Amino acid sequence: MTYCAALRLKQGMVFASDTRTNAGVDHISTFRKIYTYGIDGERFIVLQTAGNLATSQAVFTRLQNDINLKQESNLNTVVSLFDAAQMVGRYMREITSHAQEVANEPNNANFTSSFMLGGQIKGQPTELYMIYPEGNCIRATTDTPFFQLGESKYGKPILDRSVTYEADLYHSAQALMLSFDSTIRSNLSVGMPIDMVIYENDSLKVPNMKRIVESDEYFSVISKHWSDSLRESLLNLPNYPDDYWDK
Amino acid sequence: MTYCAALRLKQGMVFASDTRTNAGVDHISTFRKIYTYGIDGERFIVLQTAGNLATSQAVFTRLQNDINLKQESNLNTVVSLFDAAQMVGRYMREITSHAQEVANEPNNANFTSSFMLGGQIKGQPTELYMIYPEGNCIRATTDTPFFQLGESKYGKPILDRSVTYEADLYHSAQALMLSFDSTIRSNLSVGMPIDMVIYENDSLKVPNMKRIVESDEYFSVISKHWSDSLRESLLNLPNYPDDYWDK
Repeated sequence: MTYCAALRLKQGMVFASDTRTNAGVDHISTFRKIYTYGIDGERFIVLQTAGNLATSQAVFTRLQNDINLKQESNLNTVVSLFDAAQMVGRYMREITSHAQEVANEPNNANFTSSFMLGGQIKGQPTELYMIYPEGNCIRATTDTPFFQLGESKYGKPILDRSVTYEADLYHSAQALMLSFDSTIRSNLSVGMPIDMVIYENDSLKVPNMKRIVESDEYFSVISKHWSDSLRESLLNLPNYPDDYWDK
Repeated sequence: MTYCAALRLKQGMVFASDTRTNAGVDHISTFRKIYTYGIDGERFIVLQTAGNLATSQAVFTRLQNDINLKQESNLNTVVSLFDAAQMVGRYMREITSHAQEVANEPNNANFTSSFMLGGQIKGQPTELYMIYPEGNCIRATTDTPFFQLGESKYGKPILDRSVTYEADLYHSAQALMLSFDSTIRSNLSVGMPIDMVIYENDSLKVPNMKRIVESDEYFSVISKHWSDSLRESLLNLPNYPDDYWDK
């Protein structure tokens, strides 16, 4: 499985993806599921994926080839992030359909994958798109400042409670790290390392990808800090009214 | 959908079920999904369910009829909770198969449901069983002190972090209430009121069911208290090391 999430906030954007892939519990591997593109000072694009790894990697490869071969339309030339999202959706549909034809399983959903695309093009606002296996997409708004893909339920409550469009960028990044921590504790199919990217609005700089490994000291520190304060908060909840449980 | 969970701890047991059923988002109703049985001083049994409401209600009805009609084998006469769990599994299989036959859809999983059965019979330890749609069951151990049914992922992290076999019974009940709060906030298909039962080991008393409604003051208080302390914990996390994000 996979867990990836992306936040689009007033101050900027945060993207995080786990790296575990599994075909059954006895075939587990580590793969990157997030890639960055762009030209410093001009544009920055992040692409995250969940679903069929072969489909996802084929999409990444086609997008990179378009750039390398200087195709007229590629992620470095598209005039809007919407066009970029459309391109990703079109490639995904083509690759999925091809795989389904080859396997002679036209409706086998195992060949599908999903993407999230975000970033900023000079002179335009930041944008974040969720691209569905059908190839179409939705855009994040101030009402809905984050998207998730894959094994998203374990980590959703902490985001629901803490992440708003106005929230601080780096605090929200901590919340996202803890959202991953909760997911990894509760679900074997999501695993470290976690790849993370933080983008500050209008910096138009392609940020370095941060890889958070098991041994990452800071991740362990906030994870423990979080567990401890949760336990403490639980122990310090207001007591039941006397008649709440009739014994 | 449904969310229900049950804890089996050293001091006793806690059972909670939501009451929302939905066939699509435009057909939402409130139904009880947890029932208690027993004889004070002799035995106490709780049964919770998720899945097809018609199947679940039919099982509850058969079990109650067996008691009312004083069938030789019923929940008030079975010699062990394992026998009770086996009886529930058998009834569920019969009712599911019948519904599938009538509909002429022998493999339609929409007719299946799942159950959790817990309690205590005099002279025996407390036990908690998860009864699968296949009709067989597993028993909770000290290593695995809780089971969940239905929409369980949102509320699992808080239980994973706080509920151990040794944990305090009433604190754990608070954690369970917050597990429901998190689920209800993140998922429309789970809704108030919540039906809860707390059983203290060897009390052999059939406890009253507690119905926690939307307007329950204490539930709102700990829910807000929890949200506030989560937000505060997030804001008070240790800061990033200087070089953590290279800007």
